[in-house]
Amino acid sequence: MKHSALCYVVRRALVSGRNCNCHGSAVVRPFLAAKIRQRSFCVDGGNGGFFYWKRMMASQAGPSMPEAEKKEESPRTKSGKSEKNVVVSSYWGISKPKIKREDGTEWPWNCFMPRDTYKSNMSIDLTKHHAPKNFMDKVAYKGVKLLRIPTDVFFKRQYGCRAMMLETVAAVPGMVGGMLLHLKSLRKFQQSGGWIKALLEEAENERMHLMTMVELVKPKWYERLLVLAVQGVFFNAFFVLYILSPKLAHRVVGYLEEEAVHSYTEYLKDIESGVVENVPAPAIAIDYWRLPKDAKLKDVITVIRADEAHHRDVNHFASDIHFHGKELREAPAPLSYH
Amino acid sequence: MKHSALCYVVRRALVSGRNCNCHGSAVVRPFLAAKIRQRSFCVDGGNGGFFYWKRMMASQAGPSMPEAEKKEESPRTKSGKSEKNVVVSSYWGISKPKIKREDGTEWPWNCFMPRDTYKSNMSIDLTKHHAPKNFMDKVAYKGVKLLRIPTDVFFKRQYGCRAMMLETVAAVPGMVGGMLLHLKSLRKFQQSGGWIKALLEEAENERMHLMTMVELVKPKWYERLLVLAVQGVFFNAFFVLYILSPKLAHRVVGYLEEEAVHSYTEYLKDIESGVVENVPAPAIAIDYWRLPKDAKLKDVITVIRADEAHHRDVNHFASDIHFHGKELREAPAPLSYH
Repeated sequence: MKHSALCYVVRRALVSGRNCNCHGSAVVRPFLAAKIRQRSFCVDGGNGGFFYWKRMMASQAGPSMPEAEKKEESPRTKSGKSEKNVVVSSYWGISKPKIKREDGTEWPWNCFMPRDTYKSNMSIDLTKHHAPKNFMDKVAYKGVKLLRIPTDVFFKRQYGCRAMMLETVAAVPGMVGGMLLHLKSLRKFQQSGGWIKALLEEAENERMHLMTMVELVKPKWYERLLVLAVQGVFFNAFFVLYILSPKLAHRVVGYLEEEAVHSYTEYLKDIESGVVENVPAPAIAIDYWRLPKDAKLKDVITVIRADEAHHRDVNHFASDIHFHGKELREAPAPLSYH
Repeated sequence: MKHSALCYVVRRALVSGRNCNCHGSAVVRPFLAAKIRQRSFCVDGGNGGFFYWKRMMASQAGPSMPEAEKKEESPRTKSGKSEKNVVVSSYWGISKPKIKREDGTEWPWNCFMPRDTYKSNMSIDLTKHHAPKNFMDKVAYKGVKLLRIPTDVFFKRQYGCRAMMLETVAAVPGMVGGMLLHLKSLRKFQQSGGWIKALLEEAENERMHLMTMVELVKPKWYERLLVLAVQGVFFNAFFVLYILSPKLAHRVVGYLEEEAVHSYTEYLKDIESGVVENVPAPAIAIDYWRLPKDAKLKDVITVIRADEAHHRDVNHFASDIHFHGKELREAPAPLSYH
């Protein structure tokens, strides 16, 4: 494809956005533990590094005593900003506790903690399907089947690429639903039945699928552009849909997850037949799903598929609650279940 | 105030919105534990009850075998819908594990689990204040001080009511910020440094403050109307602000939290002087903050104030990171810190 000046600029902008703060799958950059009162991080001027933070001693004397300022040479910021060569470092004494794995090694991840990790439920029924029962179900089902057509045309059997791209979409509904339920809980002074947390967990889980797939499949510049466009459209569309009909919204997501289960099954077939190389699992996947150290891509796709099956169940369940004329908070949410 | 027909309808709608699914502070309605394969809940046709869910055995035979349908008498739904007296109950085998407190009693809450509870850090410095250092800081500081004026006029020294109403606002920024960071992480294929979770934790924490205050202070119909209006304006305004300038957004929230710490200090003075009765703490607060069984209102307000101080620190820290020209993900988020 001819690279015009515009394409170049766009591509550079998109590629420079790829900045992993996950310490990478191969190299674990240790998190420098800190005491509550004093702390510093090493500056890594390169890819997704840390900071040197000098702690400013907070005043104890009165409620509006300004913090003491330390004058120091201004570090070169990405934007090149500095205020007359004086940078007021303002560190609020927020320390991250020292966290270790079970084997005593440093926990290398910032975006999830040991308590967020789990072993997937491999006994989950992958074949379950919600047969459309009414007009709304049929609209949801046929809509999802229609969307599959351009997806199959675009990705063909490139299931790794498909997974990476579609996880950017799959992580949206849970966040939108969770947020809208959160706002509703606030303005109605009502409990949520745990559903805010359940939907936000789903969104975070899908995001972790993406973070894992990105370690395996690097997005091209035009794929990044496509993700931008799709997110803009899908976020707004789903936001409006959830406000108008959470029943339909959850049903759509349930059917999308059924398609995801099918796609991951096909991906596994390609791995098992040797079409796709069964590479070692990324470190982030091994920690997140508590996989064995010698886990492979096949193990990763298997647990991701189990997650998608769980999301399928949760969303069909949520839709059924609405179908019965109830609100989600009237049936306890399926938390702590993976 | 004369109750016109319109006021009556609006008030009924708002009052009927108050529906606690938290089992109440005094009465614990036990959650009927269920097995993975079979489960039923008791129907409570009244306030925020459960369902009778009959499990439909999922077919194992093939990928698109529809679920077996059970025909039963249609329960009366809120909307009165039924499909020709046949209700297809669709239960997706999602069971909530049986959860107990440390003393062996059933865990009564759906919206938070034992692992979400914590003991507040009472050593946190309540007097810290971020002195405005640049134009943007001054805009944020003076903006918040200006907003305090109508708030003081409206609430006067009714700090309980103030807390309840303002927590409906305080729980919005964390959710908006968390969601926008989540979307950014997806479209840029980047890690978050834990900040999505940190901000969502803040939002949930503020929501729990609200759920606690609602056990103590019942909102009046016009206060509910005010909350509706304020949420509509504030959510959209903060959404746009966070997109345009997350640095300013976090600074504003930092200053708002400083005001919250001050307000809760005044509330405590009223409790200690006897102006406000030091009633027993609600059960939800005792479980959430791991307070002693004989905890009082004073203990609850003390821990809530400590939370607000922590949010103050987190948001000023986040703003400082931006001030240095960095993105949040380049400094580990202060997770697992209360």
